[in-house]
Amino acid sequence: MTEMTQAYEAVTDGRLLRGARSRQTIARHAVDVASLESLDGLSLGRLAHDLGLSKSGIQALFGTKEKLQLATIEAAGRAFDEAVVRPAIAQAAGLPRLRALVERWIAYVDPPLFPGGCFWAANLPAFDSQPGPIRDALATQQRVWRGLLADELRHAAAGGDIAPLDSVRAAFLIDAVLTASNTALRLGDRDATETVRRFIDGLLAPADPP
Amino acid sequence: MTEMTQAYEAVTDGRLLRGARSRQTIARHAVDVASLESLDGLSLGRLAHDLGLSKSGIQALFGTKEKLQLATIEAAGRAFDEAVVRPAIAQAAGLPRLRALVERWIAYVDPPLFPGGCFWAANLPAFDSQPGPIRDALATQQRVWRGLLADELRHAAAGGDIAPLDSVRAAFLIDAVLTASNTALRLGDRDATETVRRFIDGLLAPADPP
Repeated sequence: MTEMTQAYEAVTDGRLLRGARSRQTIARHAVDVASLESLDGLSLGRLAHDLGLSKSGIQALFGTKEKLQLATIEAAGRAFDEAVVRPAIAQAAGLPRLRALVERWIAYVDPPLFPGGCFWAANLPAFDSQPGPIRDALATQQRVWRGLLADELRHAAAGGDIAPLDSVRAAFLIDAVLTASNTALRLGDRDATETVRRFIDGLLAPADPP
Repeated sequence: MTEMTQAYEAVTDGRLLRGARSRQTIARHAVDVASLESLDGLSLGRLAHDLGLSKSGIQALFGTKEKLQLATIEAAGRAFDEAVVRPAIAQAAGLPRLRALVERWIAYVDPPLFPGGCFWAANLPAFDSQPGPIRDALATQQRVWRGLLADELRHAAAGGDIAPLDSVRAAFLIDAVLTASNTALRLGDRDATETVRRFIDGLLAPADPP
């Protein structure tokens, strides 16, 4: 490799790196917008205006509105993993991890990490009847999240920490109640997190009452 | 009143009546659109195109987009009352009415009365962070619905048909799980209604086990 090629590649890498950073910054702002007004409210023009960038620059980075929406879902997934999943995974499998997932989830919406609260709650119901890659990406996120909860419920039951239960149905219920608590918090119902915690305490009843 | 005045009033009444009927027809179509694509997806132009009417005619009937959205929420409320609430109210207060409310709700989303499934599930989460009359109207609908459930839970507990419970929290949970089942059905999870029924059977445990 000649020096010139190396220099050229360094410049290209630098541009790619800056491009990737810009994409992430823009996508992260798009997550905030879509948490408030849903992914339908996103547009290249809106983001350009908010961030003081040119619309053509954003278009060059993302292409279509759909690609921007998918990049936004990806960015929301990264932020969610960082805030909720990764810290909980650091706990022991089973009941401790399950409790951590729930408490981190509550902390993720109260106070809200994104200005409009839970990104998934704001978007999946609006897209659930619109087949396509947006719905698929949102549904995948929900499936993975419920799968995490179900895995830890199975661990907890297998270890005798909780009474045997249908882990898939229980994960559905936990997700349903957490999602409803997000809407309730947005509407000013401060009691919603207590309702969630009592429900989950009931669900995670010990295998043998003490 | 002269004959002429009577004739004039008959004509005016006829116009008002036709106007009211047109408003209802348009609003009912708007409910279908908003169940699929949320209230944000509504526009006077879109409805005019769908219904083969002039945009100015629809504008004359509704005025602003916000008034159209509010009329759509009203129309959804009427259709929901007719499909879910009124038939259930015909049942005896307490457990029979509660069971009827739940079963009618499930029938309202499976097969869906509106093409996008539950109107409230598609719209409240998208508007819960946007203060204003749309959010207020959607939140009122939720409050009234949960109030209905809570009333019947109280009746059922007072009559000894179910074990004592916190009726407000239990109504929150029932609403949460029903709403989640609507999303699940839209995503093709046919098992969701069974999860709802098992959950509610558990919640409505008899006061004294047989």
